[in-house]
Amino acid sequence: MIYWLDLFGVAVFAVTGALAAGRKSMDLFGVMVLATVTAIGGGTMRDLFLGVRPVFWVDQPVYLIVITGAALATVGLQRRLGFLLDKPLIYFDAFGLALFAVIGAQKALMLGAPALVCIVMGVLTGTFGGVIRDTISDKFPLIFRSDIYATCAVLGAGVYVGLMKAGLGESLAVSVGLLAGLGLRLAAIRWHLTLPIFSLEKSD
Amino acid sequence: MIYWLDLFGVAVFAVTGALAAGRKSMDLFGVMVLATVTAIGGGTMRDLFLGVRPVFWVDQPVYLIVITGAALATVGLQRRLGFLLDKPLIYFDAFGLALFAVIGAQKALMLGAPALVCIVMGVLTGTFGGVIRDTISDKFPLIFRSDIYATCAVLGAGVYVGLMKAGLGESLAVSVGLLAGLGLRLAAIRWHLTLPIFSLEKSD
Amino acid sequence: MIYWLDLFGVAVFAVTGALAAGRKSMDLFGVMVLATVTAIGGGTMRDLFLGVRPVFWVDQPVYLIVITGAALATVGLQRRLGFLLDKPLIYFDAFGLALFAVIGAQKALMLGAPALVCIVMGVLTGTFGGVIRDTISDKFPLIFRSDIYATCAVLGAGVYVGLMKAGLGESLAVSVGLLAGLGLRLAAIRWHLTLPIFSLEKSD
Repeated sequence: MIYWLDLFGVAVFAVTGALAAGRKSMDLFGVMVLATVTAIGGGTMRDLFLGVRPVFWVDQPVYLIVITGAALATVGLQRRLGFLLDKPLIYFDAFGLALFAVIGAQKALMLGAPALVCIVMGVLTGTFGGVIRDTISDKFPLIFRSDIYATCAVLGAGVYVGLMKAGLGESLAVSVGLLAGLGLRLAAIRWHLTLPIFSLEKSD
Repeated sequence: MIYWLDLFGVAVFAVTGALAAGRKSMDLFGVMVLATVTAIGGGTMRDLFLGVRPVFWVDQPVYLIVITGAALATVGLQRRLGFLLDKPLIYFDAFGLALFAVIGAQKALMLGAPALVCIVMGVLTGTFGGVIRDTISDKFPLIFRSDIYATCAVLGAGVYVGLMKAGLGESLAVSVGLLAGLGLRLAAIRWHLTLPIFSLEKSD
Repeated sequence: MIYWLDLFGVAVFAVTGALAAGRKSMDLFGVMVLATVTAIGGGTMRDLFLGVRPVFWVDQPVYLIVITGAALATVGLQRRLGFLLDKPLIYFDAFGLALFAVIGAQKALMLGAPALVCIVMGVLTGTFGGVIRDTISDKFPLIFRSDIYATCAVLGAGVYVGLMKAGLGESLAVSVGLLAGLGLRLAAIRWHLTLPIFSLEKSD
């Protein structure tokens, strides 16, 4: 179950990467690279930092296959079916964010990391693919200045870790963490919730 | 033989990094950093993802020495002998690209990675040093929008992996893979071959 | 002793990251990310390249706690006490740079890396957090074009490694390396020392 959801989240993130490449008029290689870093960049950094070797997609080429399929489908269908993507994509993305946050925290917890580190790993898994995508595609990462986004990952991962530490079962902790992160993200989309901005006048 | 070719490829990539630094008017440290990330950035990421530890240049300082020499020579000779670099450099770079793609795939194959992952590792080794160079030097990575470049790495690594899976000998697979990647790159330079561009109108 | 100095250096670098986020009007999450990558980005890359697993802050959440505290304090106190930061910060930063360079070289040496690699690891630890900070916050990394900065890390790490290879004791080598790096940095600030610039006319 988690396995299929995970692949679904990977595909969604790959689509957002391919669309970002399209907005910068990249060629097919650029599309593939952006789709790939967006979909597995966060999880790759998590595995590197935790010392998991090799990183998860090296042993499981299914991830690369799903990404390739999602990226090619985006390119092929965008003109005709692009309108299908516009609205639902932000909701699918919200789901991917919450799911990856919980999965990332779960992996760190299984490896015995402290609670705070587990939450950081969840946030990293959920959000850093998008940060790398924006940095490579030469765009200021919106996540640092837009609607609450990473905060949903913090909440999802935090609830999961908290429930696990409280001794609740794995599947309950995963479900509640996922719903908490997803719920906050949907609320943020609906009411344009934002975090406080820290703004300095430019001194240089 | 492969060892000396490898060091030659490292030196060529270091020169392209040093020239990129010069175009941005960096100081000597910037030159060294750009030369280094261009020359060994791709192979370093490959080793990290595959779980090779430590990464290849930690045990073999010869790589850092070659890079330092190539970068300093670029700075020292550029004014007088720069014209020597302009024309041949693109061909040396084509050679480095094809060679690194095959070497990267070879290393992944020796570690038992699946075929698709081996090809990705080849492409990563051949191209990602340049992507990091362009990202750090604040330039949109041309590789995502220019002549066929990464595709040559895909072809070189793919031919190598295909021939190995078909049971041919190592040296034959390396040679044919190298020639395939190099040949496509030379053809792309000569006839300005490009991949299809995926262009979306900006919606935001 | 080194432990407390190290945490102090981490806090200083976190403050510079939080201030960079403020200059780009990021939200609280952006502030946390910039503070974190600036403070532990260099050491994390060092650990990855050396094959240390997991990276240092996974086992020691104190680093993340110090960073969170420093980032929140920067946001909270900036308006009222910002003037306190302006002047001393550059000197604290000089101290952090020299200290991290020596600590980074020390870790590589303990793991048996060659001398040249130890120096590179020192420079990486001292400077790369700032490079990632500038790259993410969409600013050309000043380190590549400004006052001598990385050179101080080279000197500090080089002196430390040289003294260790000469058979001097650990604490003497650390102290002299630290003072050498710090002294050069203070001199560079005072007299605006710079490295030679390598400037090419743009050809494209």
